[in-house]
Amino acid sequence: MGVFVVFEGGEGAGKTTQARVLARRLQREGNPAVLIREPGGTSLGESLRRRLKGRSDVNPLSELLLFMAARAQLVEEVIVPRLRQGGSVVCDRFSASTLAYQGYGRGLSLETIAELNQVATGGLQPDLNVLLDITVVSGFARKRDGGKDTFESQATEFHERVREGYLKIAGGAPARWLVLDGAKPKDTISGQVWENVKPLL
Amino acid sequence: MGVFVVFEGGEGAGKTTQARVLARRLQREGNPAVLIREPGGTSLGESLRRRLKGRSDVNPLSELLLFMAARAQLVEEVIVPRLRQGGSVVCDRFSASTLAYQGYGRGLSLETIAELNQVATGGLQPDLNVLLDITVVSGFARKRDGGKDTFESQATEFHERVREGYLKIAGGAPARWLVLDGAKPKDTISGQVWENVKPLL
Repeated sequence: MGVFVVFEGGEGAGKTTQARVLARRLQREGNPAVLIREPGGTSLGESLRRRLKGRSDVNPLSELLLFMAARAQLVEEVIVPRLRQGGSVVCDRFSASTLAYQGYGRGLSLETIAELNQVATGGLQPDLNVLLDITVVSGFARKRDGGKDTFESQATEFHERVREGYLKIAGGAPARWLVLDGAKPKDTISGQVWENVKPLL
Repeated sequence: MGVFVVFEGGEGAGKTTQARVLARRLQREGNPAVLIREPGGTSLGESLRRRLKGRSDVNPLSELLLFMAARAQLVEEVIVPRLRQGGSVVCDRFSASTLAYQGYGRGLSLETIAELNQVATGGLQPDLNVLLDITVVSGFARKRDGGKDTFESQATEFHERVREGYLKIAGGAPARWLVLDGAKPKDTISGQVWENVKPLL
């Protein structure tokens, strides 16, 4: 049977790496797994991704709705068909990212985000969310090769709120969340992920 | 004081013409009125408008969310600032268009659309919605110069549902709706509109 696994976490936590490792592992085990990222994974999503990265003239609520449009397209075009065929989906970010970044981070209403997530996904939830938890400083040190000069305190506070937000979300639904120490070696983490994904297959 | 007036109705009902006439009239009366159209009216909106017109690979729910993103941007960037300054806003389509077309026309959940309209507009409603009601056949005859050959029965049924939807929406909130016979001469209609807008100023 297929599973729907999502990797969540802050910058430099190792999501992209771990998502790739899990997708390959599933494929080696004979499970047709697809690896996707959010926003993206569809023609609409990739074009919105480019648009959102390049601009600052879109207000936070519109940005939220654009993310949701990309999510709705991804769910209908990729995730649901793949799961229906018995394949697996490994996703680099999903609904919880919006709660953590736009909600806990930027202060948009958590209730509104939850409502919009429900609409965009039609209620579809991952079988497992893996939170790769790492301190903000360590994450950015990895990501930016230690370049502290561009790392302002405003950004630190935002990313601290995101991290705390993730921990609250995961703590509120322990049956669907696996919280791992993102500072551990890559192979240790991928081993822990696999131990938790295998029983779901 | 400024007013927020929206023109609604099916294809060929005369919305664009009447919106233009009202905006000019307000300006002549010394009211700084802005004329906008949906989706559009902002850089984001116009770019989504072009995108939505050209494509069929976007699913109905994503399309709905894109419309809402454009609406949220229009409300924050144009409508609210203008009304706060005491100016008026005349809009060619707004929230009710989504209920009529995506809801009554395409069958998406009316409840979901209402919920999303609430999120995108922050609860902002027009002071007056003007529904220019016209039969589907007359509307298309105007729009297409009578070219009946391209006017399929599937399209007729869809536009009939849209028309009925508009009438239900207007009937449910008579204090905020003015329903006019779109088949009447242009000047008759603009006179009726002005009679109803003037007391709101």
